Amino acid sequence: MKITALAGGVGGAKLVDGLAHVLPPNDLTVIVNTADDFDHFGLHISPDLDTVCYTLAGLANPVTGWGREAETWKAMDVIARLGGPNWFHLGDMDLGVHLERTRRLRNGQPLSQIVRDFCASWSIEVRVLPMSDEPVTTQVVTSDMGTLTFQEYFVRHQFQPQVRAFTFQGADQSKPAPGVLQALREADIVVICPSNPWVSVGPILAVPGIQEEIHQKPVVAVSPIVGGKAIKGPAAKMYQELGLDPSAITVARHYGNLLAGFILDVVDADQAGIIDQSGIISLVTQTIMLTPEDRRRLAAEVIYFCEQFPRRVDHP
Amino acid sequence: MKITALAGGVGGAKLVDGLAHVLPPNDLTVIVNTADDFDHFGLHISPDLDTVCYTLAGLANPVTGWGREAETWKAMDVIARLGGPNWFHLGDMDLGVHLERTRRLRNGQPLSQIVRDFCASWSIEVRVLPMSDEPVTTQVVTSDMGTLTFQEYFVRHQFQPQVRAFTFQGADQSKPAPGVLQALREADIVVICPSNPWVSVGPILAVPGIQEEIHQKPVVAVSPIVGGKAIKGPAAKMYQELGLDPSAITVARHYGNLLAGFILDVVDADQAGIIDQSGIISLVTQTIMLTPEDRRRLAAEVIYFCEQFPRRVDHP
Repeated sequence: MKITALAGGVGGAKLVDGLAHVLPPNDLTVIVNTADDFDHFGLHISPDLDTVCYTLAGLANPVTGWGREAETWKAMDVIARLGGPNWFHLGDMDLGVHLERTRRLRNGQPLSQIVRDFCASWSIEVRVLPMSDEPVTTQVVTSDMGTLTFQEYFVRHQFQPQVRAFTFQGADQSKPAPGVLQALREADIVVICPSNPWVSVGPILAVPGIQEEIHQKPVVAVSPIVGGKAIKGPAAKMYQELGLDPSAITVARHYGNLLAGFILDVVDADQAGIIDQSGIISLVTQTIMLTPEDRRRLAAEVIYFCEQFPRRVDHP
Repeated sequence: MKITALAGGVGGAKLVDGLAHVLPPNDLTVIVNTADDFDHFGLHISPDLDTVCYTLAGLANPVTGWGREAETWKAMDVIARLGGPNWFHLGDMDLGVHLERTRRLRNGQPLSQIVRDFCASWSIEVRVLPMSDEPVTTQVVTSDMGTLTFQEYFVRHQFQPQVRAFTFQGADQSKPAPGVLQALREADIVVICPSNPWVSVGPILAVPGIQEEIHQKPVVAVSPIVGGKAIKGPAAKMYQELGLDPSAITVARHYGNLLAGFILDVVDADQAGIIDQSGIISLVTQTIMLTPEDRRRLAAEVIYFCEQFPRRVDHP
């Protein structure tokens, strides 16, 4: 079964890693959010792509989920001593990636090609694609601090400002990166990873053409909200601030008619009935991935769950 | 006695460090070559400024003379693994400096102000000035590889290509950095450090206004050529390739009528007579600085030697 997964950062990366361990490499493509990308110190930083790739390469920091294991912070210490901004953590190894990515982008290489080359260097066999080679930038409209770029909101201000809306600047003019639409067309199932529906999955769906393609396929989402809370990050806080109850049901409604199936955590088992009533087939299981084994077990369950949906619909 | 020194990289930095240990901070200003500056990975790298500052701050690598002590190379290792260019050594701590300098330049801060701020962070008390805030770029015209930027010639090709000429692009349009002309006016003596006359001192003298100011002052140079060889770098090789005998005499003639005094090494003692005959007062001493003590001893001798020259000439 060919799966194309949509992923943001840490939560998405974990499920993708599980899927990569369970599926043959040719059967998995990951489309990654790049609307968190930003320029810092003149470097092009792609937080979600790096998290996904580091995780797949076995290089990720297992404690934080982002950044690299055995990272050092010499450059950052120097920047701090010189009075420079140190709110965004730039590890020394991480910097090597940002520097080389930025150099290649300046030389005119598209991001998708850079990601492909980096994945080859890191012996990543599954296909990782940025959602777009064009810049799309998430802006967070807040009640208290005006409009912030995502990393300012998320890292610099520790997602404390109250959210009112999101905009994905540049999305209208963007195109899916090479391979994205084909991966969706070739997929038997599209899996929406347990990533933030607003700011991780939202931007992917905002790239013209992607949502239309996904509508042709059975889509299964894994809830990033468990017991009313996000495993990591501001998803639950965002739902609250936007006047919605942070729950698995809310996530299922968020994706609405895109979904054929929905996977929610055992702690939310009581919500499965309501989801089923809306015509979405639900699966209740342990969705929290604390260990590599958790990732593989959940991935195997996702695949088993997906088997019930009708396979690939070929375009006429 | 107020000294303004002209310096390039390692050799210049060592003598400047010696002078800084012997003179009160207010009596020493260093004007540093910036024509080796270049853009690499989008970073503005200032090799000579960094070497001078690291040396004055006690942060320099005592073995190489350039770069920082206890440096690590995590970012560079990652870049190499990703197939990026690794011919120019970017240490992790060094990267912190390049990143913060580049960030500030992009924000519109002039290089001279950045250097001042960095020196304050590093508790450097003597005044360090870039020769200019405008870009001046040394190009090396070679017989075998065409025209190369200095770092390509020096680091990437290990100064193997044969030199035919140098150009200092942008020099004509450049201005001395704020404080440079004043430091020269206020100096009792201008000391030309044992730096490469072609590519370290040459660009400083090529900035319009600097040479005219220096002409008003007694100038003492320390020979970077000892026993027909450069202590470090390509100075002797350059003289040879340009058809000149690499010797202390050749260096003295190179600076010509700028010089009031010239300091050459004991191994070249037999050349002192010829230099004296040209009207330049010579001093023969140990000029090789292997230890911090060597730097201070040579600095003390330079100052003692300089005492004989008429002090500051006030402009009418």
